[in-house]
Amino acid sequence: MDLSALDAQNPDHWRRAACIRTLTLDAVGAANSGHSGMPMGMADVATVLFEKHLSFDASAPDWPNRDRFILSAGHGSMLIYSLLHLTGYADMTIDQIRNFRQLGAITAGHPEYGHAKGVETTTGPLGQGIANAVGFAMAEESLRARWGRKLIDHYTYCIAGDGCLMEGISQEAIGLAGRHELSRLIVLWDNNNITIDGAVSLSDRTDQKARFAASGWDVFDCDGHDPADIDRALGEAKASPRPAMIACKTHIAIGSAAQDTAKGHGALTDPKLIADTKAAYGWKYGPFEIPGDLKAEWEAIGSRGRAAREAWEAEFALQSATRQASFTRAFAGDMPPKLSATIKALKKQISETRPKVATRKASEMALEVINPIVPETLGGSADLTGSNNTKTADLGVFSPEDRKGRHIHYGIREHGMAAAMNGMALHGGVRPYGGTFMCFTDYARGAIRLSALMGVSVQYVMTHDSIGLGEDGPTHQPVEHLAMMRATPNCLVFRPADAVETAEAWELALSQKSTPSVLALSRQGLPTVRVDHKTRNMVAQGGYVLADAEGKRQAILMATGSEVAIAMAARDLLQADGIGTRVVSMPCWELFEEQPEAYRKRVLPGGPVRVAVEAAVRFGWDRWLFGERGKREKSGFVGMHGFGGSAPAEDLYAHFGITAEAVAEKAKSLLK
Amino acid sequence: MDLSALDAQNPDHWRRAACIRTLTLDAVGAANSGHSGMPMGMADVATVLFEKHLSFDASAPDWPNRDRFILSAGHGSMLIYSLLHLTGYADMTIDQIRNFRQLGAITAGHPEYGHAKGVETTTGPLGQGIANAVGFAMAEESLRARWGRKLIDHYTYCIAGDGCLMEGISQEAIGLAGRHELSRLIVLWDNNNITIDGAVSLSDRTDQKARFAASGWDVFDCDGHDPADIDRALGEAKASPRPAMIACKTHIAIGSAAQDTAKGHGALTDPKLIADTKAAYGWKYGPFEIPGDLKAEWEAIGSRGRAAREAWEAEFALQSATRQASFTRAFAGDMPPKLSATIKALKKQISETRPKVATRKASEMALEVINPIVPETLGGSADLTGSNNTKTADLGVFSPEDRKGRHIHYGIREHGMAAAMNGMALHGGVRPYGGTFMCFTDYARGAIRLSALMGVSVQYVMTHDSIGLGEDGPTHQPVEHLAMMRATPNCLVFRPADAVETAEAWELALSQKSTPSVLALSRQGLPTVRVDHKTRNMVAQGGYVLADAEGKRQAILMATGSEVAIAMAARDLLQADGIGTRVVSMPCWELFEEQPEAYRKRVLPGGPVRVAVEAAVRFGWDRWLFGERGKREKSGFVGMHGFGGSAPAEDLYAHFGITAEAVAEKAKSLLK
Repeated sequence: MDLSALDAQNPDHWRRAACIRTLTLDAVGAANSGHSGMPMGMADVATVLFEKHLSFDASAPDWPNRDRFILSAGHGSMLIYSLLHLTGYADMTIDQIRNFRQLGAITAGHPEYGHAKGVETTTGPLGQGIANAVGFAMAEESLRARWGRKLIDHYTYCIAGDGCLMEGISQEAIGLAGRHELSRLIVLWDNNNITIDGAVSLSDRTDQKARFAASGWDVFDCDGHDPADIDRALGEAKASPRPAMIACKTHIAIGSAAQDTAKGHGALTDPKLIADTKAAYGWKYGPFEIPGDLKAEWEAIGSRGRAAREAWEAEFALQSATRQASFTRAFAGDMPPKLSATIKALKKQISETRPKVATRKASEMALEVINPIVPETLGGSADLTGSNNTKTADLGVFSPEDRKGRHIHYGIREHGMAAAMNGMALHGGVRPYGGTFMCFTDYARGAIRLSALMGVSVQYVMTHDSIGLGEDGPTHQPVEHLAMMRATPNCLVFRPADAVETAEAWELALSQKSTPSVLALSRQGLPTVRVDHKTRNMVAQGGYVLADAEGKRQAILMATGSEVAIAMAARDLLQADGIGTRVVSMPCWELFEEQPEAYRKRVLPGGPVRVAVEAAVRFGWDRWLFGERGKREKSGFVGMHGFGGSAPAEDLYAHFGITAEAVAEKAKSLLK
Repeated sequence: MDLSALDAQNPDHWRRAACIRTLTLDAVGAANSGHSGMPMGMADVATVLFEKHLSFDASAPDWPNRDRFILSAGHGSMLIYSLLHLTGYADMTIDQIRNFRQLGAITAGHPEYGHAKGVETTTGPLGQGIANAVGFAMAEESLRARWGRKLIDHYTYCIAGDGCLMEGISQEAIGLAGRHELSRLIVLWDNNNITIDGAVSLSDRTDQKARFAASGWDVFDCDGHDPADIDRALGEAKASPRPAMIACKTHIAIGSAAQDTAKGHGALTDPKLIADTKAAYGWKYGPFEIPGDLKAEWEAIGSRGRAAREAWEAEFALQSATRQASFTRAFAGDMPPKLSATIKALKKQISETRPKVATRKASEMALEVINPIVPETLGGSADLTGSNNTKTADLGVFSPEDRKGRHIHYGIREHGMAAAMNGMALHGGVRPYGGTFMCFTDYARGAIRLSALMGVSVQYVMTHDSIGLGEDGPTHQPVEHLAMMRATPNCLVFRPADAVETAEAWELALSQKSTPSVLALSRQGLPTVRVDHKTRNMVAQGGYVLADAEGKRQAILMATGSEVAIAMAARDLLQADGIGTRVVSMPCWELFEEQPEAYRKRVLPGGPVRVAVEAAVRFGWDRWLFGERGKREKSGFVGMHGFGGSAPAEDLYAHFGITAEAVAEKAKSLLK
């Protein structure tokens, strides 16, 4: 490809874009790993975006009203690292660029939220970024409606590649954005015709513009190497009353011997290729060298938004103290102080009235008192609103007609919902929670894992958490999903036993600032086991003695959720036979693990027998069956040993032998 | 809605379709649970499909060349159960219909593969069926090319609802089908405008016809209650040279008070509503009653394909004995007898040459000897062909131009790939395997779980199985995924230590007829630890003594995959200090668990100390740290305690302390 024409037409632009390209070549070359082609191909688009459109201030990366820039095609991480360095983000030094992909550097292989300022979300698993972007744009709409345009009024830009658009999650995101007419969302598609295996046409012939248009987007084209054309398309996209997709025709690895090839997607590390490519760019500088004049031009771009940011701060200072405090609290992710008292009052009422309700219903009861005092919550469900009990009385429905509505009909899109919630949480100022059936954590896994990896506080309301779901059968009955989520680092899995524990779980979940929570909730009604009101949040300890042995302790029964009542009934049977039995409720293993060892040993002392009860697979329970003082004890497990079945819930519990009688028998047999 | 006009126009059709509708009302009413509206709404479409187009023989449900009918909208299970009963499938008695959703019945809440004949795949988790259908259609194309039109030449029909089409997996399926021009695939979209939460427009405004067309499908419309129009559309769809989607405009819960409402989606159980609806249908019969003349009409439909089936059998009988045996073997899911000898020869060669190769490369080495002798394998990768090492030398690439090609470029579509592979395996005659990075089991979870639930032998080639992936960082590094898959019932998780174990794992995986396998394979090179050739397949025992203690046994080190070499090096360190150390390789926990307890105790006797080493979270390991004779032993774990990092692999192993020195130190500290 003859680059001289491009250079000649727009020499200033060309030199600025070349900074991104050469930093990419140098960093990938030094790391001997990475992805060169995408940052090289999209450098012109990104340069125009940052230079002419993106509202940001490199000296204030956390300015709440900045435009958000999301690199969904995260393998092209050197694109964003280059931009952050060039525009003057303080933490993105040239040494960080030099240490691309090395231990301890903030320049990870894929952009990681929390490492470098300016990285709005973790990307790399394809399609996540575009779905995050939908969440960012929804948060912006919600916040603009709530706080007014003077405080929140910005765009969300997203660069997505062919990989992002082939992943199914992108369709969920596209559909959601189209339905909600998210006009502040602009997706720049890196249309380079190349994937790892070769030409895109090897695996896909989709007309992407037609596909987006089918879901209510406005679509635009541009020559991704012509700055004027890029600028025009961005202007048109911003003016569009619908979400906009710009198909940017680009050449991957432009100017290199690997241009327009799958090889160009990966790491270009051959020194001669790098040298030749720089020569083709007319680049005369050393590795990692950005000449002063160019750096100054880029830093001017980095401060383009400074006046706007300062004007925003002045505007913010004019707000009432109450509004300022509320805004700041919400963006800090803090709960209002009165949450604790509100939950205590609810707990007291439950312990007194002792309702027999499903914990999904108990979750709604908690949300009914939470949502009015935490105005930043944004609830939702993946088309199971009435089953997940996520929509409280006065929440309203989010829509283009009512941006103040706080419940979102996500549609049958678990993965898109989870990723959008990640985007909302990352945007700040809102607190998303959303529901589906526990079994469909499967569908949302890719995004739930990223909640945990990024450390964002998203609440997953996962109802119908066992065979207690009944007739819908094994396709809808989780058995391995508790284990799956408990195995995930930095994720709290709550499985509350009754309405009191559910209220406590909600308080704890919302109080997390850097950890997502999964609330595993029953379909079926459960008796109140916490019949004595305690102001203390017992779930906070993860596991605790719900009922101690009368007389000499001979057995410890451990259970979670709907099986705690079964353990309590088994305790009655055992005590009636003179067998002193303790019941330990273990609603959150992760919090129990975090307690001092002495506490755990007090809760789980010598038994001499232990039985765990959970309507799920045993996998993971050996930690508690053998752990702490349990090593020398006899122990057993009452639960599932395979997939469930289709029948009324009570029939299934009997069929799979998860009953008080079976638990008591197991304890007795171990005592023999 | 006035049904009399419909009735008057096509009274015979109307009465036949009413059989489906009334059986649905009766079964859902009796179960007091289920989904009435969809079978009622799609009864006309299904009646015309079965009566005029679907090639099948109810008396021979396993006829290999039958058309396949897939109910992707699986909640409408009474549609297919009614059809199977009416057309005379022997196992689908009226008692089974009466026992809809009850324990032990073959009429589960959602259609379950393996329960009732005629149910080609398990559906219910939305979107799976349409993606399975793509796999069925790909299998048909492959088999038709291989065996000729006289043996394989059929259509795949799929009924999908709005939920299926909102799930992201549907886009992956649509894109794949469009690219491969699967002209024998016909999707009937139940276009009823209703989801559980209300109108589809609450969450989606997508023009589905435009969306399918954008990916290369032909699209058609029909009035889903006009049999002539349905027949016309089906005829046109069959004639189309591309995959076809027919938008069937229907009324959910037609004729009932809940017609066209979200209430109609669920269980209609009110006796008056049921009675009124039957009256509107002009139905005069008792519950579960199908008058003899109507049953006879339906059974005639059930035998429509008998002549075609018999002609096929006659044709099959004309084939050579070799072809017959090969066809029968492939459809039975049996491996050729020489597989065992082939693997043994490969193992011998590896043990002699002792290569240091990544197990993903070892997997390719195994496939290089397997694929030539197992001609039914269909390999593939989700756009990581060169990284997953799934494409062996002579496999060819499946495409419209070469249907005999046996490697599939699935594109960046892990979920769609997994579901398509399920479809292929269910079709029979082909053996699918496909690859992606282990971390992206997340994306494919929904379909992998169904492989396990259905019991189909799909091989998941999951490479880059730990922090050994290196610089791509934590977004691409599995840490909880081994636990996640091990927790899943009926799924073999193989994590081989070297090229010998990899070959053994492949032999075992392919020998499974009702269990899928996940092969967790390293990116990085691993030394051959099985240096002494054994003809016996050692992986078949799941865990075994790789190297025993010299002198008195003081420590047992347990490891899998890439950490076995680390355990062996730790053993060298410990033995040098006079500490007798056994190394147990545990490539497949599930198979080890299936061994007699006596064997497990021989492999894991008293230690007196045990250390497990795995570059993953500890979750699940307590089973082996404390289990068997380990309860009274001291034990420790060397592995991951959170997410990974972005750096060269060796730096990460050192950083996270997963080294021979750390393992030896752990053992020594426990011995103190």
